[in-house]
Amino acid sequence: MKKTLILFVVALVFSSVASAQIKEDFVSLSSNQWGKEYPKANSEGYVRNQVYAPQACRVEFQINGKVFPMSKDAEGYWTGTSTEPFDEGNHYYAIIIDGVEVPDPNSRFLYGSGAERTQIELPAHDQDKYALRDVPHGQIRELYIKSSVTGEHRHIFVYTPPMYDKDLKKRYPVLYLQHGYTENETGWSRQGRCGFIMDNLIADGKCVPFIIVMENGETSHPFTMEERKNGSMNRQAFQKFPEILIKDVIPYIESNFRTYTDSRHRALAGLSMGGMQTRQISLAHPELFSQIGLFSGGTISEKDLQENPEFLKHNRLTFISYGSREVENPRWTAPEEVVRKVKELGLNAYYYESPLTAHEWQTWRRSLYEFAQLLFRK
Amino acid sequence: MKKTLILFVVALVFSSVASAQIKEDFVSLSSNQWGKEYPKANSEGYVRNQVYAPQACRVEFQINGKVFPMSKDAEGYWTGTSTEPFDEGNHYYAIIIDGVEVPDPNSRFLYGSGAERTQIELPAHDQDKYALRDVPHGQIRELYIKSSVTGEHRHIFVYTPPMYDKDLKKRYPVLYLQHGYTENETGWSRQGRCGFIMDNLIADGKCVPFIIVMENGETSHPFTMEERKNGSMNRQAFQKFPEILIKDVIPYIESNFRTYTDSRHRALAGLSMGGMQTRQISLAHPELFSQIGLFSGGTISEKDLQENPEFLKHNRLTFISYGSREVENPRWTAPEEVVRKVKELGLNAYYYESPLTAHEWQTWRRSLYEFAQLLFRK
Repeated sequence: MKKTLILFVVALVFSSVASAQIKEDFVSLSSNQWGKEYPKANSEGYVRNQVYAPQACRVEFQINGKVFPMSKDAEGYWTGTSTEPFDEGNHYYAIIIDGVEVPDPNSRFLYGSGAERTQIELPAHDQDKYALRDVPHGQIRELYIKSSVTGEHRHIFVYTPPMYDKDLKKRYPVLYLQHGYTENETGWSRQGRCGFIMDNLIADGKCVPFIIVMENGETSHPFTMEERKNGSMNRQAFQKFPEILIKDVIPYIESNFRTYTDSRHRALAGLSMGGMQTRQISLAHPELFSQIGLFSGGTISEKDLQENPEFLKHNRLTFISYGSREVENPRWTAPEEVVRKVKELGLNAYYYESPLTAHEWQTWRRSLYEFAQLLFRK
Repeated sequence: MKKTLILFVVALVFSSVASAQIKEDFVSLSSNQWGKEYPKANSEGYVRNQVYAPQACRVEFQINGKVFPMSKDAEGYWTGTSTEPFDEGNHYYAIIIDGVEVPDPNSRFLYGSGAERTQIELPAHDQDKYALRDVPHGQIRELYIKSSVTGEHRHIFVYTPPMYDKDLKKRYPVLYLQHGYTENETGWSRQGRCGFIMDNLIADGKCVPFIIVMENGETSHPFTMEERKNGSMNRQAFQKFPEILIKDVIPYIESNFRTYTDSRHRALAGLSMGGMQTRQISLAHPELFSQIGLFSGGTISEKDLQENPEFLKHNRLTFISYGSREVENPRWTAPEEVVRKVKELGLNAYYYESPLTAHEWQTWRRSLYEFAQLLFRK
């Protein structure tokens, strides 16, 4: 009994300290729909939400799958604050009304984690990297091409740099840039903000202007849920996608955009599953891509180089990155160490670690920001 | 008492006839998210929905603001069917969980009626007009330009026809195409499917290839809800937008795309509020646009021509359209009659009426399909 009381007192003190620690400087999020006050975040990354639901019995919200309770006032407004802070950047998010998880009508939509859904965008100390600034802007172009491999229409986004439509004689290098598992071809231009990242780097003279091509690397319809469970996603991603990229996408881009057509001006990169695809494709076809980036998606190891001598011969840049919270995880072989070893073997390899972010878009925005500055320099 | 009984029997018979009349040929909608069975519609336009919500006390769904009840089975699935059919095409839609109206996570998102929200797309007898067909495809390009009028960044979508990037010497006419009140610059390429409509018309040799420019004609941030209530929306739409279009958008498009730069190759059209803006701007600046389209957005009348003689001198095409369910409404002056009269005065005017549709996207898709075939012919 005495022990219970002590625990109770300790818990009380701890909870008052914890809540005293939360700064009351909450602001509305940039991911909110027009005119909506909630959700909000404070400068530490705590998220506060409010939902008007006078007839509901329980209202909660979830961020990255973590559920937080809300409590109701006399007027029917439910309010709650996350009991932990979240990293800077973008997180998937929903509200839960009497057990039904639904998108928050206050928030804007993106495709991520297997569906179009709502998200929160937490302010970041380095958000100017991907902000809409007063600089010349490129275009994000949406196009459809028919695949000779699958017979289906492929939905593709292409970033062209600011001056692309001005000097019609100039040619550009191309980066093929892939999303991760359960994301799609919209990810890099929406969550990833690749257009703004490029516009800003080009305006600041920090990168060579290039084109970015963003394809769906996972699967297209029609695939049933059953087929997905049976592994069809992986067959599409690792068997069909390389073929689609090489036979359909690259020839289309090189004959419909003003690109260079040699491997020196052709790069491949991706995040998570897209990094694994980059590794697979560039090791199998080292003559096609001279520069690669793997963001939270594996490494090129000493063993890879020994087994693929052609890769070392052709590769001019190998960029490996992770979020610091990913490599803290003891299950991982330290990627920095792998990169150090392949550099000794003569590979022009770079390692970047995004501070205090995990397997999430903030890591990948920063990775692109760093990678783009190294690309097509030699 | 006897009367009540008779009414009850009549109601019973009527309801059994009504439900007997609903065809059980429900199919999943093309607007559903990947792998989602519900919502469904039958061939008559009735909509059936199902939501898993074992803990909820009441679940409903609404289409265009009309609410339909759902009932719960032993496993916690709520199912309901609309008690009336809906027109072919696109309608805004939401589910309601214990009184909280939220987007349906089963459905895809669009911006419409003042927010990003879910929608249903009902099959239409003429859906091939706006289907993704196996034809050459143009591009929808997303760009940002800074306005000299407001100092803000304007978010613009531009459709370029299939061969735009091939023959770099060819120039194109331009249609400036505006959305309606509480919609935005995304409407015409998403709900309106203008890219597919143009690709199909061009492939079928039914229209002269041209560029389409889609701007936000209402308002951009930052506008508070208070300002909107006070009419700032209208000030922006009818005072600022004409200036933004003429001073910022047209000069940018004509110096960054391969366009003709004379009024003969410049058209303006819009739906609803966009039609009213088209009327306002083209009457005030008849020298700028030789061809105009007003879709569910008013007419050019005899009085307009008398008051604006320059308009008749410059105009080469005036296209007026409505959904048949709009002009059934006795409040409206019959637009067909207005068009007949201005034709007598020498205006090259056309009238189109979309069969069995109201003030909705199916009317406007069909209007664009008809209008595009007449544009830039003379």
